[in-house]
Amino acid sequence: MSLGLIGLGRMGGNMRERWHAAGIDVVGYDVNPDVSDATDLADLVGRLEAPRTVWLMLPVQFIDGTLEQLLPLLAEGDVVVDGGNSKYTDDQRRAAAAAEHGVRFVDCGVSGGVWGRADGYALMVGGEDEVVAGLMPYFEALKPAGEYGFVHAGPVGAGHFSKMVHNGIEYAMMQAYAEGWELLEATDLVTDVPEVFRSWREGSVVKSWLLDLIDNALTADPDLSEIRGYAEDSGEGRWTVQAGIDLGVPTPAISSSLYARFTSRQDDSPAMKMVAALRNQFGGHAVLPEDD
Amino acid sequence: MSLGLIGLGRMGGNMRERWHAAGIDVVGYDVNPDVSDATDLADLVGRLEAPRTVWLMLPVQFIDGTLEQLLPLLAEGDVVVDGGNSKYTDDQRRAAAAAEHGVRFVDCGVSGGVWGRADGYALMVGGEDEVVAGLMPYFEALKPAGEYGFVHAGPVGAGHFSKMVHNGIEYAMMQAYAEGWELLEATDLVTDVPEVFRSWREGSVVKSWLLDLIDNALTADPDLSEIRGYAEDSGEGRWTVQAGIDLGVPTPAISSSLYARFTSRQDDSPAMKMVAALRNQFGGHAVLPEDD
Amino acid sequence: MSLGLIGLGRMGGNMRERWHAAGIDVVGYDVNPDVSDATDLADLVGRLEAPRTVWLMLPVQFIDGTLEQLLPLLAEGDVVVDGGNSKYTDDQRRAAAAAEHGVRFVDCGVSGGVWGRADGYALMVGGEDEVVAGLMPYFEALKPAGEYGFVHAGPVGAGHFSKMVHNGIEYAMMQAYAEGWELLEATDLVTDVPEVFRSWREGSVVKSWLLDLIDNALTADPDLSEIRGYAEDSGEGRWTVQAGIDLGVPTPAISSSLYARFTSRQDDSPAMKMVAALRNQFGGHAVLPEDD
Amino acid sequence: MSLGLIGLGRMGGNMRERWHAAGIDVVGYDVNPDVSDATDLADLVGRLEAPRTVWLMLPVQFIDGTLEQLLPLLAEGDVVVDGGNSKYTDDQRRAAAAAEHGVRFVDCGVSGGVWGRADGYALMVGGEDEVVAGLMPYFEALKPAGEYGFVHAGPVGAGHFSKMVHNGIEYAMMQAYAEGWELLEATDLVTDVPEVFRSWREGSVVKSWLLDLIDNALTADPDLSEIRGYAEDSGEGRWTVQAGIDLGVPTPAISSSLYARFTSRQDDSPAMKMVAALRNQFGGHAVLPEDD
Repeated sequence: MSLGLIGLGRMGGNMRERWHAAGIDVVGYDVNPDVSDATDLADLVGRLEAPRTVWLMLPVQFIDGTLEQLLPLLAEGDVVVDGGNSKYTDDQRRAAAAAEHGVRFVDCGVSGGVWGRADGYALMVGGEDEVVAGLMPYFEALKPAGEYGFVHAGPVGAGHFSKMVHNGIEYAMMQAYAEGWELLEATDLVTDVPEVFRSWREGSVVKSWLLDLIDNALTADPDLSEIRGYAEDSGEGRWTVQAGIDLGVPTPAISSSLYARFTSRQDDSPAMKMVAALRNQFGGHAVLPEDD
Repeated sequence: MSLGLIGLGRMGGNMRERWHAAGIDVVGYDVNPDVSDATDLADLVGRLEAPRTVWLMLPVQFIDGTLEQLLPLLAEGDVVVDGGNSKYTDDQRRAAAAAEHGVRFVDCGVSGGVWGRADGYALMVGGEDEVVAGLMPYFEALKPAGEYGFVHAGPVGAGHFSKMVHNGIEYAMMQAYAEGWELLEATDLVTDVPEVFRSWREGSVVKSWLLDLIDNALTADPDLSEIRGYAEDSGEGRWTVQAGIDLGVPTPAISSSLYARFTSRQDDSPAMKMVAALRNQFGGHAVLPEDD
Repeated sequence: MSLGLIGLGRMGGNMRERWHAAGIDVVGYDVNPDVSDATDLADLVGRLEAPRTVWLMLPVQFIDGTLEQLLPLLAEGDVVVDGGNSKYTDDQRRAAAAAEHGVRFVDCGVSGGVWGRADGYALMVGGEDEVVAGLMPYFEALKPAGEYGFVHAGPVGAGHFSKMVHNGIEYAMMQAYAEGWELLEATDLVTDVPEVFRSWREGSVVKSWLLDLIDNALTADPDLSEIRGYAEDSGEGRWTVQAGIDLGVPTPAISSSLYARFTSRQDDSPAMKMVAALRNQFGGHAVLPEDD
Repeated sequence: MSLGLIGLGRMGGNMRERWHAAGIDVVGYDVNPDVSDATDLADLVGRLEAPRTVWLMLPVQFIDGTLEQLLPLLAEGDVVVDGGNSKYTDDQRRAAAAAEHGVRFVDCGVSGGVWGRADGYALMVGGEDEVVAGLMPYFEALKPAGEYGFVHAGPVGAGHFSKMVHNGIEYAMMQAYAEGWELLEATDLVTDVPEVFRSWREGSVVKSWLLDLIDNALTADPDLSEIRGYAEDSGEGRWTVQAGIDLGVPTPAISSSLYARFTSRQDDSPAMKMVAALRNQFGGHAVLPEDD
């Protein structure tokens, strides 16, 4: 059993190891020749027996360009899986482009980060029933050992939609713990904040895997003094809020979480300049100079 | 080893069983004579050997009245533990009142709900070191079997402060999952929403005990069609937001969660009446009659 | 001086009267023949002297179809103005389509609602300098009499972007007053809420035109008892939040306002069903049946 | 007609001038002897004819101490007005303290800032009907010339409650404009942001006094480059959110506005440290060092 894998970065590289361990022969391709098995896409396709399965594990900006080169190399009956963090609204268009070459398209959201290699990845899959059924050996090799961690969520697009929502939930859960941590840090009453978080790992309502990671982080740096309060956001938090707007679903907690990240990346808040200017205008309240 | 326990409702009753199982002799008192061991507070105090430990497991509105009766019955060296969901700002006042009788006061936030009897309760404790040390057998009997689930968070008040923050985090985590669920329900793409949540129980970043409970709930009622979108709030979510205001800590996700509950209890939103009225005033947009 | 006007609904009809009053000859077309001057688009174009100006005042969903029919009828040097509430991201595409016919495109956000006919409309315009300059007589006829009410905000798209932000601000201002009104209604302390709002019309920091309209609304219905708390939203609030997400600009107050409208249109909140289900799962808290 | 005035800062000093202009004899006292008429409170009381009216215009932290000294100096039938930004929950307690001396207490929220001296102040008054009626000459001298600007909102406390809500609304209105300004600054499409705001002063739905002040501010500093994005908050925004929590009224827009100010005063966000730490833990995402 073989699999073509395009993209051998942190995620792709780790996933390759789980497939190897399951006895699946992975032919990998990456722009970095040091980690590539194949010299180019044509070489990769040539090394796979038909019907082929090619799994993309790429940053979103490279999906369309890669498909444009890849699809003409494939044949009727081949399958392409997009395992990256693509926007769900792109999936059906890509499936249609694949269909023009007789190629079936499946979208698969993959969660688990750097822990997936050891613990298995949670997989959220969108695609036709029979195509998904044929891919099960690849999914089985990636997913955790237990009964959970895999879902065929619906037709093409459903996998990335589910993964997007998963990440939106993740944003708000992290914000929840972060607000709680800031409160505990701010009070004089609580004298050992890391120990409070640690204690919640059993018996509490808020016990979770993220909480276990908080314990790790606070064990290494009890007041996070070495880390700046600066958080990037990948596309999925933004898309979750946009999906809420499109569907008329209020997402106040997820939106708050996204906006807190936006604000964390500003040296100075333009909006708060305006508020300061207005307070000065109507109340004579002092403003701070910008170079203060 | 004995303990006086005042309040034998759902929480107190279950906790009594864990203490019994640990060989602690519990003398219970409740306004409901069917579950009481003692006939009144004086009887309860009389049945305990000095130095006594009396644990209150009462709704917040009954704490002050109970202390007023109880403290004169106690003696120098006795200890009172408030295990209820009291507001942290009341603890130091109550400790001072107890001190006037030579009684030491400890606050203990208890998490675990209906699952605590079997799995153990997470305990967050505030009080003086030596008093807390003396209470460890009682705490050990309640907490889960593992290494977590107990914290001595600081001086009097620190336990209830920590429990309050715990509940604030819990509000926002529940809101996070709830927003995600509403999104998944709203899209046509995802055809098996319960299965998506179930799949996240392993390998995902959002795995948690609350997620396990979501699986239970969706197994029983896959689209929650039997449950009304109506959520009460206990005091702790409100107090968390207030504490943020007092400490200058922004809590947008927790506040959103609290406000969503407020709104869920309104038949009609007064604020939205005003928005509708204004849209009609400036744009001639139709309003819906109240009895629509 | 003449103008072709496509769309004679509430906005278009009122604007026609201001143009008439300014001595501009308006040839109107609408799908409703009772208010149309021209029988169809070809007739409308035929009645205008070159170079023609055609102003669209249409719901967004009709813009592309109308342009598809209209542009081939126009000639080099003609100008099309989109005065509707179009999304700014569509403007440059439409300008390019117009340019293929030698037609110049200008976008114009129009504010003022039902009051614009008497008081003048605030206009926010995007387009090339010389094209906008040539349209000034039409703008002058629409705008209020004073020194304000018109801005050439930038190139094509800048007019609708500015109008979109205007409406986003409007959402949050309305929400601000609405929250204040709900607070005043909720307390027992304040015995004459309409009079409080009325008093703010002079001397206060919150005096505004919207406040004047609140006074009108509360004079007609002092507790808004006849109006349901149900608010539609047009596209512009949604687009403002989306623009914030695209630009990395946090818009918490505008987002809150949008979400409050979403919620107002739900009979029951799916998210709150999930919160209720979870509270029941972990705490044994009662849920209300859906048909309660 | 005479009035005792305690507190001659920016607000008190300007108000004195409006009373003088109305022919009211003001005896002022301030801790700053340069602006005081009276040498101390006893001197101030001695210079007033009974029944006396004494108006406090003091920062909230000095009200209780001042009343403690002042009330024993007053006599049956005298009236004390608290014109400061006191918390409404303190009013009834202070009225009760005054009543023990036979003194009547009135609370008066005063809006208008530095513009009040010229334009008049908006007044929101709480107290008994007959006491308020007797104070009308003082209120008439302060309020704007037109028909608005004064309200007797209810019993003691209603004035400060109304003023608190007024300020809460003000917070969210300022945030609304500020978010809009940040959006307009962030896009490349709009080339003259100050002119966009200026244009809205007529014909738009968002025209207001605050908008006029924005025009002033942007005329002086078109991109607010000299002002830091740092905004203090007085108590009233916080109290508005607290009142919402106490009354079960959701205030998402006002809360957002308050939290944006909190965040503007943080060099680094503790909450975002935690989010960054978690992203690093589960995804291996880089964190920025604190001293970056």
